[in-house]
Amino acid sequence: MYRSEIKVIDCTVRDGGLMNKWQFDDAFVRQVYHSLCSSGIDYMEIGYLSSEKAFSRDEVGPWKFCAEADLQRIIGNEEKKIKFSAMADIGRIEYDDILPKSESSLDMIRVACYVHQVDAAIDLAHHCIDKGYETTINLMAVSTVGLRDLDEALADLAASRVPVIYLVDSFGAFYSEDIEALAKKYMQALPGKTIGIHTHNNQQLGFANTITSIIAGINYLDATLYGIGRGAGNCPLELLVSFLKNPKFKVRPLIEVIEDQILPWTKKIDWGYYIPYMITGVLNQHPRTAIAQMESDHPEKVTEFYDQSTSMT
Amino acid sequence: MYRSEIKVIDCTVRDGGLMNKWQFDDAFVRQVYHSLCSSGIDYMEIGYLSSEKAFSRDEVGPWKFCAEADLQRIIGNEEKKIKFSAMADIGRIEYDDILPKSESSLDMIRVACYVHQVDAAIDLAHHCIDKGYETTINLMAVSTVGLRDLDEALADLAASRVPVIYLVDSFGAFYSEDIEALAKKYMQALPGKTIGIHTHNNQQLGFANTITSIIAGINYLDATLYGIGRGAGNCPLELLVSFLKNPKFKVRPLIEVIEDQILPWTKKIDWGYYIPYMITGVLNQHPRTAIAQMESDHPEKVTEFYDQSTSMT
Repeated sequence: MYRSEIKVIDCTVRDGGLMNKWQFDDAFVRQVYHSLCSSGIDYMEIGYLSSEKAFSRDEVGPWKFCAEADLQRIIGNEEKKIKFSAMADIGRIEYDDILPKSESSLDMIRVACYVHQVDAAIDLAHHCIDKGYETTINLMAVSTVGLRDLDEALADLAASRVPVIYLVDSFGAFYSEDIEALAKKYMQALPGKTIGIHTHNNQQLGFANTITSIIAGINYLDATLYGIGRGAGNCPLELLVSFLKNPKFKVRPLIEVIEDQILPWTKKIDWGYYIPYMITGVLNQHPRTAIAQMESDHPEKVTEFYDQSTSMT
Repeated sequence: MYRSEIKVIDCTVRDGGLMNKWQFDDAFVRQVYHSLCSSGIDYMEIGYLSSEKAFSRDEVGPWKFCAEADLQRIIGNEEKKIKFSAMADIGRIEYDDILPKSESSLDMIRVACYVHQVDAAIDLAHHCIDKGYETTINLMAVSTVGLRDLDEALADLAASRVPVIYLVDSFGAFYSEDIEALAKKYMQALPGKTIGIHTHNNQQLGFANTITSIIAGINYLDATLYGIGRGAGNCPLELLVSFLKNPKFKVRPLIEVIEDQILPWTKKIDWGYYIPYMITGVLNQHPRTAIAQMESDHPEKVTEFYDQSTSMT
């Protein structure tokens, strides 16, 4: 599928960091950065934008903050050949802590919010636009949002100045038909805006639902190297790049950094298709219970987990 | 998706056996059997139908043969509540070794063949029909077959008495659009016949392509517990059953047997999404090089494998 409007956003460090508190060392982040540049990826989401007051650097790595000094260590002295993105969570960033674009290596700030936070998200995104950044709003967990609430949120977003709105399958619960129906709804409700997709792999549908999104007209595509990310992980970047027919994308640099930097992490943290994540995905539940199960001393007791998850009492 | 014509065929022992030479003990096969019965699965493909002369029981387990005595040990004294299937490979079974249906616990024989073997496959399938069995022909590796050869094979199959023909993505190379196009072609070329689907998971599309097949009108669906199977494995049965809305299917017995019997095998053999399998899938190549890579002393050297796989010299 070749379409010049398509942009690919790698979220390896940001979403993968949810599994290790963003404790990737600089060598890791630097090789991911150089590989993404060589591969022709459009954006690297390098972490969260958080105020230093909100978290301690003793507990979380630098990519929870994305301070300018952190970014500069990765870029070094060469010209930056990819756009940097950071994700901002409502309530964890002070407006004054966001630098003007002219003083920052960040190009885009993505605001993640739940449906009841849409007004606050638009306000923060407008603030970022006024400071000179590209922005998106990523409306999370829509698989649990009622029709009227979703319509109201989309109307608010339509009236905003935010140019890119994301369809997010937070729980990995959507089938391709859900993605088709929601993509159509988002495009009708948000005329003139670009739509993005962020999937999770609880039902092994992260990549497939991203393909469905592309066919439906969605143009901003999130993925991570080898699917690394919270719980079941994300759409694997190497699969997405192999699918896209735009010759600017190269897969070999991605294979190389997977070998050097990602495969070693498979020995330390578990992401991907596991039965607890499959169960919360099928049940359209937040993965927190599955994550607790995976981190318990009995991750393989999946029948008990299934019974607890489906209990009506 | 509820459609009464849909039949689900579990291939755990047959396709999973490709990873361990069918060395599943009777306790494994018996629990799979009882779980599939409880889950409402229509068919259990319990192994290959091979002549005892073609292989030695010292080297391969009983499910390479599916002799009547092997089947009886699993069924025991209770009524059989699921249909048994076995796969026959052209050239590895003597016609005379196939019992009349009245003397066998098998209900269905599936003949796997490449496009150049279609005539031989039809002959064997007709022989099985005449002995009283349900039959299918599973045309393998069609992702590498030219249009004219495929049309000729489909014409031969259309003229045969074989009622069920399978679309097989042997290399895990197909995207959903390929499945849609081929499903349409098979249905047009094979009027009055039922179409089946067998996918592989090299690009994490095994389940997604099975959903696409269902929407396209395909009614015989292959899957395995936790996706166990050669290389990247198959469509996971627990995902498929969770998707299907027919209330006769239950997922809990599948979770239980995965916990008891399949998860222990994940410690002994590697199937699923690995970069070597992803590479052969993307390149539409037989997985044999990827399997050799995974079994080598350097499975993680994936860049070198990529370079070898894409070398034009």
